[in-house]
Amino acid sequence: MPLVYLTRKEHFNAAHKLFNPNWSEEQNAAVFGPCANKNWHGHNYDLRVTVKGEPQAETGFIVDLKALSTVIRRLVIDKLDHKNLNLDVPFLEGKMTSTEVLAVEIWNILAPAVQDLGPCRLHKIELFETERNSVTYYGE
Amino acid sequence: MPLVYLTRKEHFNAAHKLFNPNWSEEQNAAVFGPCANKNWHGHNYDLRVTVKGEPQAETGFIVDLKALSTVIRRLVIDKLDHKNLNLDVPFLEGKMTSTEVLAVEIWNILAPAVQDLGPCRLHKIELFETERNSVTYYGE
Amino acid sequence: MPLVYLTRKEHFNAAHKLFNPNWSEEQNAAVFGPCANKNWHGHNYDLRVTVKGEPQAETGFIVDLKALSTVIRRLVIDKLDHKNLNLDVPFLEGKMTSTEVLAVEIWNILAPAVQDLGPCRLHKIELFETERNSVTYYGE
Amino acid sequence: MPLVYLTRKEHFNAAHKLFNPNWSEEQNAAVFGPCANKNWHGHNYDLRVTVKGEPQAETGFIVDLKALSTVIRRLVIDKLDHKNLNLDVPFLEGKMTSTEVLAVEIWNILAPAVQDLGPCRLHKIELFETERNSVTYYGE
Amino acid sequence: MPLVYLTRKEHFNAAHKLFNPNWSEEQNAAVFGPCANKNWHGHNYDLRVTVKGEPQAETGFIVDLKALSTVIRRLVIDKLDHKNLNLDVPFLEGKMTSTEVLAVEIWNILAPAVQDLGPCRLHKIELFETERNSVTYYGE
Amino acid sequence: MPLVYLTRKEHFNAAHKLFNPNWSEEQNAAVFGPCANKNWHGHNYDLRVTVKGEPQAETGFIVDLKALSTVIRRLVIDKLDHKNLNLDVPFLEGKMTSTEVLAVEIWNILAPAVQDLGPCRLHKIELFETERNSVTYYGE
Repeated sequence: MPLVYLTRKEHFNAAHKLFNPNWSEEQNAAVFGPCANKNWHGHNYDLRVTVKGEPQAETGFIVDLKALSTVIRRLVIDKLDHKNLNLDVPFLEGKMTSTEVLAVEIWNILAPAVQDLGPCRLHKIELFETERNSVTYYGE
Repeated sequence: MPLVYLTRKEHFNAAHKLFNPNWSEEQNAAVFGPCANKNWHGHNYDLRVTVKGEPQAETGFIVDLKALSTVIRRLVIDKLDHKNLNLDVPFLEGKMTSTEVLAVEIWNILAPAVQDLGPCRLHKIELFETERNSVTYYGE
Repeated sequence: MPLVYLTRKEHFNAAHKLFNPNWSEEQNAAVFGPCANKNWHGHNYDLRVTVKGEPQAETGFIVDLKALSTVIRRLVIDKLDHKNLNLDVPFLEGKMTSTEVLAVEIWNILAPAVQDLGPCRLHKIELFETERNSVTYYGE
Repeated sequence: MPLVYLTRKEHFNAAHKLFNPNWSEEQNAAVFGPCANKNWHGHNYDLRVTVKGEPQAETGFIVDLKALSTVIRRLVIDKLDHKNLNLDVPFLEGKMTSTEVLAVEIWNILAPAVQDLGPCRLHKIELFETERNSVTYYGE
Repeated sequence: MPLVYLTRKEHFNAAHKLFNPNWSEEQNAAVFGPCANKNWHGHNYDLRVTVKGEPQAETGFIVDLKALSTVIRRLVIDKLDHKNLNLDVPFLEGKMTSTEVLAVEIWNILAPAVQDLGPCRLHKIELFETERNSVTYYGE
Repeated sequence: MPLVYLTRKEHFNAAHKLFNPNWSEEQNAAVFGPCANKNWHGHNYDLRVTVKGEPQAETGFIVDLKALSTVIRRLVIDKLDHKNLNLDVPFLEGKMTSTEVLAVEIWNILAPAVQDLGPCRLHKIELFETERNSVTYYGE
């Protein structure tokens, strides 16, 4: 049976800053530059979620895309869209809001939820902070 | 010798519907929603074909891109472009026309044809049904 | 007061064919080529709707984007998405489904509806049938 | 002599919220929805600046693109990138930070500066808040 | 009768340099910077050609897109693609190869040819040298 | 500790030709077609560099993106941008300037430099010659 990978793209718009509370403002500015601006900045994030599994004979689907999209929106997009990543998101509390950390946390939320959708597993999280900067995570 | 991956993007425009002939219309509508519309809908599909091999000393190529493009067009694009995937395509007869199934069938056609092009092998088929929905298949 | 133009992009996926019922099949094939395929083909259409008006002091908006998007979806996208443009769309009945005709008909539907949204007017319809082929209409 | 239009695209990442200080929180939430989130959200903005003029015989340029880019960056991008549009930008103080208002204010800053670059004039400001929402302003 | 604008995108890959032969090398380097590199550099150019006219009752077309594409390819793309704009293109001989000049010359070639295609006229040439730098010309 | 992949996109514009000096002009034209044009052609190249590592607790970064971008620009982009790949680039001397060879040579330059940036390693080089033609190399 063929193993096929299915990718769904979603997006969210959020404010954040890169700031380590154990450091002085000077140290934060030195390491993070304008990303440490105390009044925040923001991004249009693109999120690509890839699941893998075998196409079912009756549907040709490895998973119903609408169900996958609904799970991503309910568990991730609704928590992040039009939010401040540092202040408004319980699962990021006390964490740096770098793209790397964000991708790992999104994996941690979606991996069990994808398995509840049927015989498929989460394979990859790809998160674009800008068109030029992105992060990929395979749960390893 | 380095192993390099080369990707060529092609595209085709086609009509299709998602419809299981063993099910009632109601069941099809319940599972596939508007994708089951009996009068069809359609897409601009983007197809990315990746082959792998070692660059040849005399050309710097792992395969001649023009030859690769010609094979993809002759065996895949000419069969799918401006067609109805459910009615007009012999290699999809009796199959669901989901993106998953389509990607697997395109692999099955291109894998032997790529090997005839020289010392390279097919590595990956990536098929975008829309900008937000895509499928990847590695022949496994 | 400044006159500002606001554009919202929506999209729909549809099947269609180019076919003049007053002509023979041969004549249709000669003029429209593969676009006349009797079993249909299809596209992912991108629709860009531009309205113009003066930003309101209290909101900074010329029109509420959410209200504009709702109108476009209700009057246009819901009628065209996952449909057959030749068979399923009352406002295209008896018309050629070229991108040109489609853009003009979308204008005719949206122009009065935009005026109901407040002190703004429809300025432009831009419709992409593919990334390489598009049509623009200003209601003139 | 031909009149040619030259466009340069720049971008900036910023936080903002839509909030009318004369209104209650409830009224703001009712009108602006999630865009009124008190903790801000943000965007990757794309800015396209178009100038017009006649190509100079000695260079073929209507204006030196590097000089144009430098002016846009110095007067606009450096003021907006990695900032909070409501808190950090003198020329937006006391104004709504809608895309409409932002485009008009950018025009007001760039129009005189472009004329200092030589025999060309500012023609158009096009500002994308997201890929799907954009605003155009011609200074009229 | 509605006036509709139809746009076709084509592309070509070419080498060029910006160099005024009446100037010293130093002066060229001072004005054109790295674009004056004596060994050339190059671009993937995107060309968008817009024609205007009234949709014909029998076809819904203002002009046959295939015929338009053929004219653009024969008169423009075939002359520029995989060429050196300064050395290989008769219609650019003795001219600066700035994007501005290139757009004007393409207009001059296509304007009469478009009129031969039927009751339509050339409306606009839009030429992208890079994703961030483009030029528009309306023949005025 | 999670293993995360970070990608940075840069670009350069260059001239080149595909030409084997051990072959006659006829043989070069037969194999490389218009890519062998003796007066060169050119491209806007997009380069995507992927590094892998574990996010650092204090920053959330696997590597400082600004430092990574600086290394790519200093060692690769500055050597290739607005250059002739066959004539101006020491590390390509005597080599075919195919996308395959170019990607391998960029890997060879960046692999040791990335390791100097901290506890991360180069994972992948992805090089687009055009939107439709690209090459990927993993250093194997």
